[in-house]
Amino acid sequence: MAGKSTSDGGPFSHELRVRYGECDAQGIVFNANFLAYVDVVVTEIWRESMGSYDALLATGVDTVVAEANLRFRAPGRFDDVLTIEGGFDGLGTTSTTLKLRFRRADELLCDADIRYVFVDVESWQKTAIPAEVRERLGPFLLAE
Amino acid sequence: MAGKSTSDGGPFSHELRVRYGECDAQGIVFNANFLAYVDVVVTEIWRESMGSYDALLATGVDTVVAEANLRFRAPGRFDDVLTIEGGFDGLGTTSTTLKLRFRRADELLCDADIRYVFVDVESWQKTAIPAEVRERLGPFLLAE
Amino acid sequence: MAGKSTSDGGPFSHELRVRYGECDAQGIVFNANFLAYVDVVVTEIWRESMGSYDALLATGVDTVVAEANLRFRAPGRFDDVLTIEGGFDGLGTTSTTLKLRFRRADELLCDADIRYVFVDVESWQKTAIPAEVRERLGPFLLAE
Amino acid sequence: MAGKSTSDGGPFSHELRVRYGECDAQGIVFNANFLAYVDVVVTEIWRESMGSYDALLATGVDTVVAEANLRFRAPGRFDDVLTIEGGFDGLGTTSTTLKLRFRRADELLCDADIRYVFVDVESWQKTAIPAEVRERLGPFLLAE
Repeated sequence: MAGKSTSDGGPFSHELRVRYGECDAQGIVFNANFLAYVDVVVTEIWRESMGSYDALLATGVDTVVAEANLRFRAPGRFDDVLTIEGGFDGLGTTSTTLKLRFRRADELLCDADIRYVFVDVESWQKTAIPAEVRERLGPFLLAE
Repeated sequence: MAGKSTSDGGPFSHELRVRYGECDAQGIVFNANFLAYVDVVVTEIWRESMGSYDALLATGVDTVVAEANLRFRAPGRFDDVLTIEGGFDGLGTTSTTLKLRFRRADELLCDADIRYVFVDVESWQKTAIPAEVRERLGPFLLAE
Repeated sequence: MAGKSTSDGGPFSHELRVRYGECDAQGIVFNANFLAYVDVVVTEIWRESMGSYDALLATGVDTVVAEANLRFRAPGRFDDVLTIEGGFDGLGTTSTTLKLRFRRADELLCDADIRYVFVDVESWQKTAIPAEVRERLGPFLLAE
Repeated sequence: MAGKSTSDGGPFSHELRVRYGECDAQGIVFNANFLAYVDVVVTEIWRESMGSYDALLATGVDTVVAEANLRFRAPGRFDDVLTIEGGFDGLGTTSTTLKLRFRRADELLCDADIRYVFVDVESWQKTAIPAEVRERLGPFLLAE
């Protein structure tokens, strides 16, 4: 929830529990699932900022992932409750980077930088972030 | 490939290799992935019968899964090559049941009955199987 | 939560929200994900009945899915909150069937019967349901 | 297959077909699945270099993903055949980076850098790449 998190966690926080089928034969969270979790988180950010992801689409824009950088620090395990915190690292004209940290209690498991490009919902061409979206994402920006 | 399989395997056969991320923390294929494999197989059946799944859609119909029954006999494991064989158990007016067997060499791992209902691509209402589709599925019917 | 649900929903209820990546190119929940959801639910049943899935394993038994029957009534969609209700249809010597209903508000999307066989955690051979497990599953049995 | 690819594709190449369930409600490959595809590819690299992934484990080491960087250039679509090419960017003492390019015919969809750390199969502590593994990975190194 925006505004609820501690000083270093950033403006957004979400919790989810690791599912059995998300762990691989090593008994740990399959690495691709961290990227799937990012998508769960960004859906919640759209819910908190815009009302819903559909409300974002109603402004005429959608987002596509242009780049994803993940650093894996420690394995996640079945039934772990993960706290995922972070926010946007500024808003460019047509793109922004979401910086997230995945924690199990105080242990950092993964951090991720995901760069989103805004596209027109019809043409899928790169487009400027609408003023309304820009305003609503304000509370989700990381401190300088 | 239709027509290639042995007398009891049915008119269709496809092979796939179990991926690491498809296995769960028990080290075996996560049960839901057998249902995902069914979808891989039915795509190949559309390719062999119609040319492609898109060619099916071009006839004005799509399919939805109405019922899935899976019996798990033995676990699949990472890197197993699975042979998936079977065919359709007759063609009803608006639906058909695909009967599949998943084998690792001679060992039966799973058998599945999947009932598909044909729907209009626009309205998503139940619709009769088009004559062209009916004809092209002929070679994929199980023997009486 | 056991005991909380309405008269026809059964002794267990759990909610989950459909993730974007769980929907396929038809824009609806990919059918295999309902089987993945079953696994999420059964984990919660072990948490409520035994304390955790690990506590089940500590009794010396694990479960394997022997059979899964799913009937799809209506499509689930992105961001839907699904209510999943049900319970066990009696306890056999070595197996039991979990009967679940997936609802979006009052609309039934899917119902599922999943038969679990209890196996020894070491040998993976079929084994009797331990007395402790049998007792703790009592509140999760469907009414006759 | 090592040695088969063109001058700029690198020493390793693998093809796979996009599955329906790997596409999301936007109708394109869900971004997390590119990371899942990396794992499919690396399994094939172990098969070609060591005989199998199990043969790698038999040398006493396993690998964990320490970092993944993916750049998404264009969307993948259902039924696309993807060609995935690349190789290792040198071998460090305990780690190496796999550089892959995902193409649909001549169109680049994604490129990925995945850093693997070698760990002891028992302790999961970082460990030196065994001489045998180092030798067998030789043909899979990118040219300087």
